[in-house]
Amino acid sequence: MEGSEKKFYDYLATIQGYNEAINLMYWDLRTGAPKKGVESRSQAIGTLSAAVFDLKTSDEMKHLLDELSADSADLSQVTVKAVEEARKDYDQFKKIPAAQYKEYVILQSQAESIWEEAKEASDFSLFAPYLKKLVTFNKEFLEYWGYEGNKYNTLLDFYEPGMTVEVLDRVFGELRESIVPLVASIGSSSNQPETDFLFRHFPKEKQAAFNTYILENLGYDFSAGRLDETVHPFAISLNSGDVRITTKYDEQDFRTAVFGTIHECGHAVYEQNISKKLTGTNLCDGTSMGIHESQSLFFENFIARNKGFWKKNYSKLQEISPEQFRDIELDDYYFAINESKPSLIRIEADELTYPLHIMIRYEIEKGLFNDEIEVEDLPEIWNKKYEEYLGITPPNDAKGVLQDVHWSGGSFGYFPSYALGYMYAAQLKQAMLKDLQNFDELIEQGNISPVKEWLTEKVHTYGKLKKPLDIIKDATGEELKASYLIDYLNEKYSRLYKL
Amino acid sequence: MEGSEKKFYDYLATIQGYNEAINLMYWDLRTGAPKKGVESRSQAIGTLSAAVFDLKTSDEMKHLLDELSADSADLSQVTVKAVEEARKDYDQFKKIPAAQYKEYVILQSQAESIWEEAKEASDFSLFAPYLKKLVTFNKEFLEYWGYEGNKYNTLLDFYEPGMTVEVLDRVFGELRESIVPLVASIGSSSNQPETDFLFRHFPKEKQAAFNTYILENLGYDFSAGRLDETVHPFAISLNSGDVRITTKYDEQDFRTAVFGTIHECGHAVYEQNISKKLTGTNLCDGTSMGIHESQSLFFENFIARNKGFWKKNYSKLQEISPEQFRDIELDDYYFAINESKPSLIRIEADELTYPLHIMIRYEIEKGLFNDEIEVEDLPEIWNKKYEEYLGITPPNDAKGVLQDVHWSGGSFGYFPSYALGYMYAAQLKQAMLKDLQNFDELIEQGNISPVKEWLTEKVHTYGKLKKPLDIIKDATGEELKASYLIDYLNEKYSRLYKL
Repeated sequence: MEGSEKKFYDYLATIQGYNEAINLMYWDLRTGAPKKGVESRSQAIGTLSAAVFDLKTSDEMKHLLDELSADSADLSQVTVKAVEEARKDYDQFKKIPAAQYKEYVILQSQAESIWEEAKEASDFSLFAPYLKKLVTFNKEFLEYWGYEGNKYNTLLDFYEPGMTVEVLDRVFGELRESIVPLVASIGSSSNQPETDFLFRHFPKEKQAAFNTYILENLGYDFSAGRLDETVHPFAISLNSGDVRITTKYDEQDFRTAVFGTIHECGHAVYEQNISKKLTGTNLCDGTSMGIHESQSLFFENFIARNKGFWKKNYSKLQEISPEQFRDIELDDYYFAINESKPSLIRIEADELTYPLHIMIRYEIEKGLFNDEIEVEDLPEIWNKKYEEYLGITPPNDAKGVLQDVHWSGGSFGYFPSYALGYMYAAQLKQAMLKDLQNFDELIEQGNISPVKEWLTEKVHTYGKLKKPLDIIKDATGEELKASYLIDYLNEKYSRLYKL
Repeated sequence: MEGSEKKFYDYLATIQGYNEAINLMYWDLRTGAPKKGVESRSQAIGTLSAAVFDLKTSDEMKHLLDELSADSADLSQVTVKAVEEARKDYDQFKKIPAAQYKEYVILQSQAESIWEEAKEASDFSLFAPYLKKLVTFNKEFLEYWGYEGNKYNTLLDFYEPGMTVEVLDRVFGELRESIVPLVASIGSSSNQPETDFLFRHFPKEKQAAFNTYILENLGYDFSAGRLDETVHPFAISLNSGDVRITTKYDEQDFRTAVFGTIHECGHAVYEQNISKKLTGTNLCDGTSMGIHESQSLFFENFIARNKGFWKKNYSKLQEISPEQFRDIELDDYYFAINESKPSLIRIEADELTYPLHIMIRYEIEKGLFNDEIEVEDLPEIWNKKYEEYLGITPPNDAKGVLQDVHWSGGSFGYFPSYALGYMYAAQLKQAMLKDLQNFDELIEQGNISPVKEWLTEKVHTYGKLKKPLDIIKDATGEELKASYLIDYLNEKYSRLYKL
């Protein structure tokens, strides 16, 4: 490699170096940095983030992109994609007038702290003026960025490249029509699980031992990562040989850590298995929020909520926490960890009701950007939709419209990825069954390697080389369909609740 | 603050942000980063270090320094010092032709890996050509940097501003004349300590508990730091609210961790107590290597090797590791941890023989830069000096001239700081006794606060605002004198060994 192409990759490696530093500072802040250093740390993160912004939008970057685009015929497929990705970043920021963007960044940080206050006070009216401004700014940005079809498509595209309202309306519509009645029948079923034992005391150290055991079993590579404790769990890639998982231990509800860790494990295994050819480039990352979520949900729901998984691991759990589980049969345990019932808080929802929480947010965002919904009316609309889809009404704003941080940071278009990821996961699972017909048996044997390898071959290895919808099409032979998730949920929950 | 002064401080804060990131990446690499991420991490550190170099030597920096120097009458004393410090950095690099400096940086990294190989093979001849080149480069640099009196003064000045060969020859000469015969009489004394019990098994977790207890007692602020495990212990300041200590646990020799941790605690307490007015500037750092070492050695030798310290803490140690210490009397314990005997390796030396290791290195470096010693002759010279000062001869190069990493990185002029720090510490202790006449009593009570506060008031708070020799003069009312250390060592070891 030489000339502009070499310069371009060196430039990307520099950006990667900065990002590694920023991510490590963030990780450290969330896992063990002493409190007196927090203020200075936040400033350091700000300094380096500003430098990354400058690097991504510099004249030098533009020059390199223009040069490489001029004779793209000679470039490798990887370079073409890397240029495309870098230009997308460049355009996203450069199309907006600098002064306006600066104003917006200030607004974002104000809005986040006001949102915290508003949530504390459970008073949406405090947050409303800021949210209104954030929406207005984004509407103006949309005019600079441009859009095809629905305006909201451009916002979706930032998180899920290629995704459109058209597709979402179709798949979410189908999903809603199936889940809403299913949730209702479960509610009125006379078969309900015993769950008391879930809340028995389970010491943190013992939970950590179990989680480490499970992570090793799931193929998480500890020589390219580590497990730490935090308040709001996440997985983070510092570089392709250092992808870390964090988790939270609730000594009165072990599920938080076990399923949380397995969820983050799915994210981390994705990042650990991106082709080493992409290391140091801007393609060495998950291709979208939705595909990322498909991997975490595959691990959490399709592996760890599979009964075979607990046939294999329940005795280990009983061994580590005998007082809690000694007197509980596997079937009762399995029913309990799959209990489904409508709840108010998205991040605490079970796997069946979860997509409904997402759809509500999607419908509201779409309405806001198509001038069909006013910010002032959000609490009312929010509560109505919860009543309609889940049959419950939030008692206040804190447990309703103010529960999520996303909007306060100006993240519109992000929420759909969560439910998309779930549908992707179900469709991937179905396709995987063609190659691994003994899937359930493998899980029951604790032989996860073939499953992980299949996902690596079809998804992980590509990083950002393929767009999300191409990943799904190439891996499953089909466009995105809601039916696989619908069938999975119907089949599983009808059986569990004997509907 | 406004105009250039404000710009200058913002610029310094940016550099501080980069340094925080670099230091965190380094700390993480030494305490728990997974091995597969090391290569990429090293590149990221390289990227950010290059950026700091660019920031410190940029045209913008020069412009700010020139502007501020032009009307320095209006500037605060802090700004004047900050400008002076920044210009020193600027000059150090800018006076050397860029191409030559680049060649030197490449040589440094080659030399470090060759040194590792040479040490492994215990063969100085492998390393000699690289060391020769490193010396030659530095001699050329000295012509660009300039010097007053002895050429070696300029090298000393990087680590110990204001220090000269004239001063060192005097104090090291006095020290040598006292220590060499003292070491000899100890060797021939019939009183020798029993030390077998020191090497009994002491589990890592219990050592960590004891170290945490001691750190809290010594005034290390855990809300502005943390304690972690590493291979080669160090203290590191990420920012003034985040100063971390690392330690190493040897389960067969608990002294490694206890005295190592207390040593690093001295460094860390220094950094934690620099005036908050200097936060974010280039003055928020220890003023020199020697003054830094004076703090670590004050804690390690004048506090933790004081008998009163163990009168207070020995019962705690017995409680934590009863099998090891139950049958050992305090007096025997105290004699054992103060055993002194000549040894080959600097970093394993006791507090009495340690300065001799330093003097040997000082004399060699001085000879090299005054063309009185040739690199080829180093093994022979080294071994002769060990025979002369310590009465022992290294059996090979690995345990002799190749033992330290410093020269392979081109660090000439660094070694004297270690022994200087020791003399500073002894002189500070003597001055402290005027204000805290009940020093021994305070230590015995575990009431370290007055001691720490004295050090903070006289040393810590200034950061780089005062030069090392001014710190000593202002705190003790005298120029640097070797006699305080000599008296301490003579008195203590004559008593211990009943000479």
